[in-house]
Amino acid sequence: MNWDLLLTHASLATFVGEASYGLLSDAAVACQDGQIVWIGAMRDLPSASAATAREVHDLDGALVTPGLIDCHTHLVFGGDRAQEFDLRLNGASYEEIARAGGGIVSTVRATRSASEDELLAQSLPRARALLADGVTTLEIKSGYGLELESERRMLRVARRIGQALGVHVQTSFLGLHALPPEYKDRRDDYVDLVCNELLPALADEGLVDAVDAFCEGIGFTRAETQRVFEHARQLGLRVKLHAEQLSDLDGAALVAEFGGLSADHLEYLGDAGIQAMARAGTVAVLLPGAFYALRETKLPPVSALRSHGVPIAIATDCNPGTSPLLSLRLAANMACTLFRLTPEEALRGITVNAARALGLPDRGTLAVGKRADLVVWNAKQPAELCYWIGGNLVRNVWIGGVMM
Amino acid sequence: MNWDLLLTHASLATFVGEASYGLLSDAAVACQDGQIVWIGAMRDLPSASAATAREVHDLDGALVTPGLIDCHTHLVFGGDRAQEFDLRLNGASYEEIARAGGGIVSTVRATRSASEDELLAQSLPRARALLADGVTTLEIKSGYGLELESERRMLRVARRIGQALGVHVQTSFLGLHALPPEYKDRRDDYVDLVCNELLPALADEGLVDAVDAFCEGIGFTRAETQRVFEHARQLGLRVKLHAEQLSDLDGAALVAEFGGLSADHLEYLGDAGIQAMARAGTVAVLLPGAFYALRETKLPPVSALRSHGVPIAIATDCNPGTSPLLSLRLAANMACTLFRLTPEEALRGITVNAARALGLPDRGTLAVGKRADLVVWNAKQPAELCYWIGGNLVRNVWIGGVMM
Ligand SMILES: [Zn+2]
Ligand SMILES: [Zn+2]
Repeated sequence: MNWDLLLTHASLATFVGEASYGLLSDAAVACQDGQIVWIGAMRDLPSASAATAREVHDLDGALVTPGLIDCHTHLVFGGDRAQEFDLRLNGASYEEIARAGGGIVSTVRATRSASEDELLAQSLPRARALLADGVTTLEIKSGYGLELESERRMLRVARRIGQALGVHVQTSFLGLHALPPEYKDRRDDYVDLVCNELLPALADEGLVDAVDAFCEGIGFTRAETQRVFEHARQLGLRVKLHAEQLSDLDGAALVAEFGGLSADHLEYLGDAGIQAMARAGTVAVLLPGAFYALRETKLPPVSALRSHGVPIAIATDCNPGTSPLLSLRLAANMACTLFRLTPEEALRGITVNAARALGLPDRGTLAVGKRADLVVWNAKQPAELCYWIGGNLVRNVWIGGVMM
Repeated sequence: MNWDLLLTHASLATFVGEASYGLLSDAAVACQDGQIVWIGAMRDLPSASAATAREVHDLDGALVTPGLIDCHTHLVFGGDRAQEFDLRLNGASYEEIARAGGGIVSTVRATRSASEDELLAQSLPRARALLADGVTTLEIKSGYGLELESERRMLRVARRIGQALGVHVQTSFLGLHALPPEYKDRRDDYVDLVCNELLPALADEGLVDAVDAFCEGIGFTRAETQRVFEHARQLGLRVKLHAEQLSDLDGAALVAEFGGLSADHLEYLGDAGIQAMARAGTVAVLLPGAFYALRETKLPPVSALRSHGVPIAIATDCNPGTSPLLSLRLAANMACTLFRLTPEEALRGITVNAARALGLPDRGTLAVGKRADLVVWNAKQPAELCYWIGGNLVRNVWIGGVMM
């Protein structure tokens, strides 16, 4: 059996082992049937296998990383909120914006009124932007439909993005994102609907890889979140949570209690939550795009997460209201610049720890047996990926061994 | 004579007239011999000219703006400072970074040791990144050579970038950027060298479109700046200045006194400087990339600039130390997000006011007689260009009527 792909004279940021970035200099990586089958120093490369490899690229020292993983996005939605952005910067108050039809309800309205094909057409360019930046696995949440047909449509569009672009899409059902206008005075009825109708129906159709909620003063309570998590557990689905973004509702401890994949945002996370996450192995997903766009000043507790050994991931949170961010590499730069992560922490946050946040142990590092999701960069050192702000540093991408 | 190019059913952000963004909806623009020759509503389009136009694009409502203008960059340099970025985020002190060979001297060293072709090869991808984002005119400064041969090489590379990419490059000689190590104890000798040898020689070779300096506690004094400005005036060259970035040295008033094109940075600008700039018509160039990357907290006096009618431009300040920013549209987003400019102010700042900052009255708006530098965007409303963070919204670019 011949190797399908061989990259030689590469600088491999493997994110495995003790070296900084798991870096292997002057190294090679070989893939076969969509998996990494050999990795090591050039001097150890078996010459017989190398000679018969089908496709060989001499990288002359260029950097290779695992494909990037964006573990928290809301990139399927109708319309945009550029008008609202404009109004706000022209001094409009939140009331005036609401009167002008702004806010999340405007996205719910535009999403509900878009057909599946329209929603796909509007969302594809955003997914393409992420891919152009080296993303090979992508999480997409529902949560702008807030009723069965529209939530289904969002999740179906998420799956279709994966098929159309050859990228791996992981879906999250986010029924508890916002209270839909028609349930304004019937919160409990909406939570019932989510738990008893939407979640089981969509899970039954295979559209739900995990269950998320927005646990916040302006979102849903801890008790409401717990209800949907219990239904998720009955269906055998993993959970994750928008937690402690604007206040500490003890959401991180709740998601940890359920053995959750991740708690996301976390600016107001306290010590009890951190300890619970550390015990449960729940990943802390930091979202600097929202922090930047909202001009927040309260920083997530990065030092405490570090000292308790909580794995940190970074994501775009791509969404029309609070983080219209179309670059995961820029999110990593923001994590360094605004949250003072090291470049290595930021890059682990968009590779190995992001894979963990999605419960996907088959990717996020360069090692034998992992998926052949690889990016070759126009860069020599890993830190360059966090250092440059904007621009396009991607040279080549393979997803599952297939060149994009 | 037939029109070379006709764009129909466009939303034209002309930045002319009283309407917000100078917007003309359902409009057309026609070009001939590299200039705009007709602009107006679709209903007024002369049908005979339209019928014989050589190239016609029906834009179905897509947004068209003037080509973007980045009026302040240092994008020609050797090496990068990613290693320093990494060290700093790992807690290294400035002394440790200096000992590890970091800081501006490391860029001077790398720039001096690069051949002209190497410098071009390293700089072209950065220029391409700016172009991919809609930039059609670009300012590039010298200032990492700090001796005749290396400053000449930088400026020649700047010109070659223009030729290689078909973009208009405007050069600035920035001899007073940093004191070169070999002049450590001979400041006056270096200022003499800049004024009496470097500037006249490079101007004589046609490499200098304007003269810049870094007037700052860690740069050059007001008196030293004034000396080089006087020599520039004798040579008939316009001046501009890095002023009031970290302290108020009254540099803005100095550049205004010389009828300068622009004063740039300006976080510490006071009322006297603003009034002097308003009287002289000197443009305020704000550089939010450096503000972001340095995590500055002192905001430039935007309200006072507005109330005194000082035109505001926005630029990337693309440089390896304090603003490794490769997207002018992202600079505009930062101007909105961090400096609270309106999207219209930010977009005027990268079009009409940036043209003024470069002394180029032939561009920066869509109007008859202006250069045919046009960008068609995957967007409907101008505010979208500032709202999206990252991503690629450019559909088509023409520079001087030539499609890129
Ligand atoms: Zn989110
Ligand atoms: Zn500068």
